[in-house]
Amino acid sequence: MTEYSKGLEGVIANESALSNVEGKEGRLSYLGYHIDDLVENCCYEEIIYLLHRGKLPNQAELDEAQARLRAERSLPEGVTEFLRTAPKDANPMDVTRTAVSMLGLYDKRAAVGEPDLEKDSAIALSIVAKIPVIVASFHRFRQGLELPPIREDLNEAAHFLYLMSGEVPTDRAIRTLDVALTLHADHGMNASTFSARVTIATLSDMYSAITSAIGTLKGPLHGGANEGVIHMLQEIGDLDKVDEYLEGKIARKEKIMGLGHRVYKVLDPRAPHLRKFAVQLTEELGEAKWIKMSERIAETMHQRKGLNANVDFYSATVYYSLGIPTDLFTPIFAIARASGWTAQVLEQLRDSRLYRPMTLYTGPTELMPVPPIDQR
Amino acid sequence: MTEYSKGLEGVIANESALSNVEGKEGRLSYLGYHIDDLVENCCYEEIIYLLHRGKLPNQAELDEAQARLRAERSLPEGVTEFLRTAPKDANPMDVTRTAVSMLGLYDKRAAVGEPDLEKDSAIALSIVAKIPVIVASFHRFRQGLELPPIREDLNEAAHFLYLMSGEVPTDRAIRTLDVALTLHADHGMNASTFSARVTIATLSDMYSAITSAIGTLKGPLHGGANEGVIHMLQEIGDLDKVDEYLEGKIARKEKIMGLGHRVYKVLDPRAPHLRKFAVQLTEELGEAKWIKMSERIAETMHQRKGLNANVDFYSATVYYSLGIPTDLFTPIFAIARASGWTAQVLEQLRDSRLYRPMTLYTGPTELMPVPPIDQR
Repeated sequence: MTEYSKGLEGVIANESALSNVEGKEGRLSYLGYHIDDLVENCCYEEIIYLLHRGKLPNQAELDEAQARLRAERSLPEGVTEFLRTAPKDANPMDVTRTAVSMLGLYDKRAAVGEPDLEKDSAIALSIVAKIPVIVASFHRFRQGLELPPIREDLNEAAHFLYLMSGEVPTDRAIRTLDVALTLHADHGMNASTFSARVTIATLSDMYSAITSAIGTLKGPLHGGANEGVIHMLQEIGDLDKVDEYLEGKIARKEKIMGLGHRVYKVLDPRAPHLRKFAVQLTEELGEAKWIKMSERIAETMHQRKGLNANVDFYSATVYYSLGIPTDLFTPIFAIARASGWTAQVLEQLRDSRLYRPMTLYTGPTELMPVPPIDQR
Repeated sequence: MTEYSKGLEGVIANESALSNVEGKEGRLSYLGYHIDDLVENCCYEEIIYLLHRGKLPNQAELDEAQARLRAERSLPEGVTEFLRTAPKDANPMDVTRTAVSMLGLYDKRAAVGEPDLEKDSAIALSIVAKIPVIVASFHRFRQGLELPPIREDLNEAAHFLYLMSGEVPTDRAIRTLDVALTLHADHGMNASTFSARVTIATLSDMYSAITSAIGTLKGPLHGGANEGVIHMLQEIGDLDKVDEYLEGKIARKEKIMGLGHRVYKVLDPRAPHLRKFAVQLTEELGEAKWIKMSERIAETMHQRKGLNANVDFYSATVYYSLGIPTDLFTPIFAIARASGWTAQVLEQLRDSRLYRPMTLYTGPTELMPVPPIDQR
């Protein structure tokens, strides 16, 4: 079999039991659990456990996993020094990619050797615990602030928001971010997950694989969509101007950020959860304008074009309402997806084959003599 | 079409005009020029130009390209500081991956925006010029030495060897490394090149793509093979012991490093060039033992198993003879392949499609209710 499929469309590259994206049904499940049920009944740490271990934890297992995660929050001094001295106007995704790569220098376990799932699971947990600290550290340092002391009494969502602001957040804010992390944890095959698998399949190491994933997520065709939603809302500026803006976009056949989904032909099952939180949060903040604009855009585009708002559409408003600056939206995506990336890398290691597709050679088929340089 | 091909074997993922690997004929060409002709008639800088621009340079073009490359050798202060303070026992591939990622923070051109081939070609040249300086800097610093002053009067091969040792190398050494760089510059689709293409296809940036490639090259199934050859020669230790060693390996059906090639069913066309230099260099050094052992291994395995020595088999002895420590063999592979990686990224940007293969879902097909935590 030799088949050319540009961008590998329609080609199955590997097997995975982690998440099931059912586009026609508009359904997403992790390990056989519907995302709605998981959001309703679990915290994000249970999702990490589920993805890494293949089963939901009981209380003792959850307690142990949480304790291990929380004990992994401190960064090596060299990484903190890098975050402190990085240019303040650097792209936070570039900073996060570099810091995760640098973590590998300080972890003796990362030296190449035989794959060892116990070792790699421990590294996976460490990376999941440290990415939020990396993102928050850079954000504090670029404002000339110190990082608040690392704490072990807060869950992942609470601790990240605490590091960002210096204050323990409200229960509503914690729960909102917890759900957002759960909803973004894994999503079948996607470009960043695929790049992590391509990297680990040479039996490189976990840090290399997650570094590849972060660099791939950075691209506007992948991780950058939710930033685009906020820029759109800011550009429109007011509820009164939504209709005019949309008419212009439709007339010029321009894409509107956060609407429709390549896989989900009906509703993106993650969107309603975030919509609910977006409504609550913006009302609480007295900034209902943003969600009202969003709702107007979503309704209009559904009526006019049959498009549904996707996860990015509401996550933008949610993150904005949590006080997170726009250029950290994609890093937060990385914080959440790190659990899925690391789980997929562990899965790849359990039954790996080097990814080495072929290239269709389109250059000269007749070999040419090399002309002397004075005859070129 | 939905087809499962584990590791994408036999699937064509993209088009490329850069290098043509003809396995049955044992032939490698860049842009229609046979590798033998290029080695005979060109220096490595002409190869960089050929891969980046699609044509061989005339003298004026070569002079300009060389001047631009040489002007790009200085590292940002932050990157040098990182290399100076990195743990001295860190894996040089981890260091190189991190340093290349960090270069992105100091290059305003890397901010995400519309692909711009002129801008990305300039970044490509800068990365090709800086990777050797990164590798040599870390090597000097880990020995407690300073980096010799950057010079602009030496070509790529000479400058790297000068930075490593502090002395301008012999013409023979320069020519040897120049040929090795030429031979390793590009090689169709391979795991690291593929990972660079997957990363850039989200319209991320050149630094992200090359960072992915370095992390992927690190794996022992890809870049690490030539280190294995030196370890084998050291383990054998003496010409007298080669036969016994090989008999043991053959009896236990163990793989012998540097022999045979997945694609080249006849001779790896790069091997004879490096063999020639390995013979000359080891004789010059009065260390003919290594090449004699190598020759004995190659002859025996050809007779017994029909296997030919590949490029890694002789590059190991060549690098060893140039005084390069074993743990820098894979970084030197990265130095050379950077020209091919960046050229392939530029080619991808000219006609890109997101790589997003599918996954065969193998988890539970019946959705399960989430049990309360005390019933798990």
